[in-house]
Amino acid sequence: MNIEITKEFIDLLSEKINEQNAKAIKEMLEGLHPADIAELFDELSTKEQSFVINLLENETSADILLELEEEDRKKLLLKFSAKEIANEVINEMDTDDAVDIINELSERKKVEVIAQIEDKEQAKEIVELLRYDEDTAGGLMGKELIKVNKNWSVVTAIKQMRKQAEDFEEVFSIYVVDDEDVLIGTLSLKKFLTTSANTKVGDVYNDKIQYVYINTSNVEVANAIVKYDLYEIPVVDELMRLVGVITVDDVIDVIRENAEEDYQLAAGITQNVDSDDSIWKLTKARLPWLMIGMLGGLGAASIMSGFETALEKYTILLMFVPLIQSSAGNVGIQSSAIVVQGLANGSIKGGIFKRLGKEFLLGLLNGLGIALVVLLITHFIFGTTYYVSLTICVALVAVIVNAAIIGTFIPIFLNGRGVDPAVSTGPFITTSNDILGVFIYFTIAKVILGF
Amino acid sequence: MNIEITKEFIDLLSEKINEQNAKAIKEMLEGLHPADIAELFDELSTKEQSFVINLLENETSADILLELEEEDRKKLLLKFSAKEIANEVINEMDTDDAVDIINELSERKKVEVIAQIEDKEQAKEIVELLRYDEDTAGGLMGKELIKVNKNWSVVTAIKQMRKQAEDFEEVFSIYVVDDEDVLIGTLSLKKFLTTSANTKVGDVYNDKIQYVYINTSNVEVANAIVKYDLYEIPVVDELMRLVGVITVDDVIDVIRENAEEDYQLAAGITQNVDSDDSIWKLTKARLPWLMIGMLGGLGAASIMSGFETALEKYTILLMFVPLIQSSAGNVGIQSSAIVVQGLANGSIKGGIFKRLGKEFLLGLLNGLGIALVVLLITHFIFGTTYYVSLTICVALVAVIVNAAIIGTFIPIFLNGRGVDPAVSTGPFITTSNDILGVFIYFTIAKVILGF
Repeated sequence: MNIEITKEFIDLLSEKINEQNAKAIKEMLEGLHPADIAELFDELSTKEQSFVINLLENETSADILLELEEEDRKKLLLKFSAKEIANEVINEMDTDDAVDIINELSERKKVEVIAQIEDKEQAKEIVELLRYDEDTAGGLMGKELIKVNKNWSVVTAIKQMRKQAEDFEEVFSIYVVDDEDVLIGTLSLKKFLTTSANTKVGDVYNDKIQYVYINTSNVEVANAIVKYDLYEIPVVDELMRLVGVITVDDVIDVIRENAEEDYQLAAGITQNVDSDDSIWKLTKARLPWLMIGMLGGLGAASIMSGFETALEKYTILLMFVPLIQSSAGNVGIQSSAIVVQGLANGSIKGGIFKRLGKEFLLGLLNGLGIALVVLLITHFIFGTTYYVSLTICVALVAVIVNAAIIGTFIPIFLNGRGVDPAVSTGPFITTSNDILGVFIYFTIAKVILGF
Repeated sequence: MNIEITKEFIDLLSEKINEQNAKAIKEMLEGLHPADIAELFDELSTKEQSFVINLLENETSADILLELEEEDRKKLLLKFSAKEIANEVINEMDTDDAVDIINELSERKKVEVIAQIEDKEQAKEIVELLRYDEDTAGGLMGKELIKVNKNWSVVTAIKQMRKQAEDFEEVFSIYVVDDEDVLIGTLSLKKFLTTSANTKVGDVYNDKIQYVYINTSNVEVANAIVKYDLYEIPVVDELMRLVGVITVDDVIDVIRENAEEDYQLAAGITQNVDSDDSIWKLTKARLPWLMIGMLGGLGAASIMSGFETALEKYTILLMFVPLIQSSAGNVGIQSSAIVVQGLANGSIKGGIFKRLGKEFLLGLLNGLGIALVVLLITHFIFGTTYYVSLTICVALVAVIVNAAIIGTFIPIFLNGRGVDPAVSTGPFITTSNDILGVFIYFTIAKVILGF
């Protein structure tokens, strides 16, 4: 906040970098937060970036690296030796961030960097964290935490906490464990402020505590942190031993990425892409769904061509295919979006039949509303015959009800089978609606108009 | 976490409530987190809920109320008098939560409740907070914070902090102000653990601090907290005086709601609805977009009827309308989703022309890919003539490029005009594509086939 990065500032910085004027650069960046400097880096070449990184203090450099986009960071890290990465970057990071960075390196460099870490304790912790799946609590957690034994007095606890706190910047929770390292509670900073020095930790700690297991999925971790309004959540192993802690900032990334992924899937984009990605990457993410949509379009064409002879008499029916399809498509997307979102935030309860019944009613209501308007417009403006108007309206209601039910059923069905329901939205449902919609339309036409 | 709410548990609880067995109910709920009890409440009637609320301690009751859905909370609060709400609910809450609850009351009850608040200091703070816009930092912030004067010694600071901390549960940051109450920095818990008692606060505080102004929008507040990985952010007035603090949990709600809203808008749902809302509310949220989509379909029909006589000769062209439209629709949604998301998370930079150029290329690439496949399929499977196949393929490329450009341009244009770009996605872009797509298709047909 509070700092506006202007074009003039960037131009001046580039100039100073070209002049290799270390002093001026340091002065310019002095008051900036690493996250702001990382934003500035978007405007610099990798060579310029590495010049700046080398100038700044290791701690700042490490923070800047963490804030960069993955691809920019990878490029930049290629400019550094394993030793430099270990001593100047990894050494300054919390273990969870260090693991994220190391995971982005090539297999060979990974081993080299770990071998170069001077703090053997940190190296061990990193190696431990590396073996956890990225999408679980183990993959999110860091080893930086403060724990006190329940048998300690508050004064001993303070002494130990000072020692433990040396390695990292911020302390938010104090965890209480027993002699077996089993997590039994927390000590709030407030308790800590208001308790006399000789009190035993075991007498004042809070034993109501939320925790997650090492293999809890990252989405469940995020849900727990949000549900219980936590700043961090401790991670335990199968024996309830405290092994790490996950902070809310890591979880916000999970929440954001999930929401973005669902949104993109609904929009027919198969990978998590960014508007700044290359055309090739964007095409790879977008073309598959377009192909599926194309097959839907061709499928609809092939159904229509089956009615071809009859349709030569009723060309007018073909004019309303877009109306039928867009209505079915819109209803299908609406229904599935609500269900997918409900499944994602856990608000969907109750049986599937009750829900389908509700969607049926909803589709019927919306369908009748639209059909009525269409009846009037087709009859008075397009001047279609009574039977053609009737065909269009009956088909509209049928197609909308059908789309509402399919849009509800497919995500719930997939979710029950363990498949991410978000993949079903967007083009998938639209495509099945395209084909089914046309089929229903012309079948109804055949019945009413008798061709 | 860690507690599974079973059907048996709920049945037993209902039974005990019917028996008015206070002791058994208290025992059953003893170990549960208020957020879990709130989840249980979904299964209880308002009458049962109010019985339980009256049984539990005020602090727990207040926490449960905060976790309920707004509508359930409103219903439940109708069962309580203004005095009960003030003494048993508001009294136990942080000011930001208290304000949220009070804002949900009727104007009359609002005044009554505020008049009944016994802690006059809290009442004043609540009245102050009530005047801020809900969507700004002022509307999100609470007054619970710990501040120390830079001229105090650490030992004085501790004494004052104990006093300030009495009213609330958790303490995460210690803010440092000068004699004018101007925010000048923070004191980390770590510093606090490792500094001797006689040191002056002014000598050890950290003057690098992120803050927001009272009228900063909630989305900007969220972005700042995420960008700088903060647990809370202080709020200052125009004179830089510290007036409140916003915690990350409040901001997570903002992030979630925004993501859900964007997603729903893209799916053509105009209000923030839930799958459990009434059919009437869902219809109100869904029907408007369906009507717009309907107009698009009728618009397409009216364009086609303009070509009617020609089309009697080329009925085959009409069969491929769904293909043209679904391709245009899918590309339009993909393009706009990426742009909307980029605008939401601030990753969109650079000029609009560069971006349009990129989308043009992307559309061309995807369009040519699809057109090639369609060319082969129409020619060999549908047996269309060379000119008809050519018409379809040229139209496909033109329509896809057009959709990509529109899908990119509209959100950026709206955003520049201060309109939420998310409203433009979904049915809006689909509908304009429906009409334009058909128009482009038949215009190209006219040129190539010469009707």
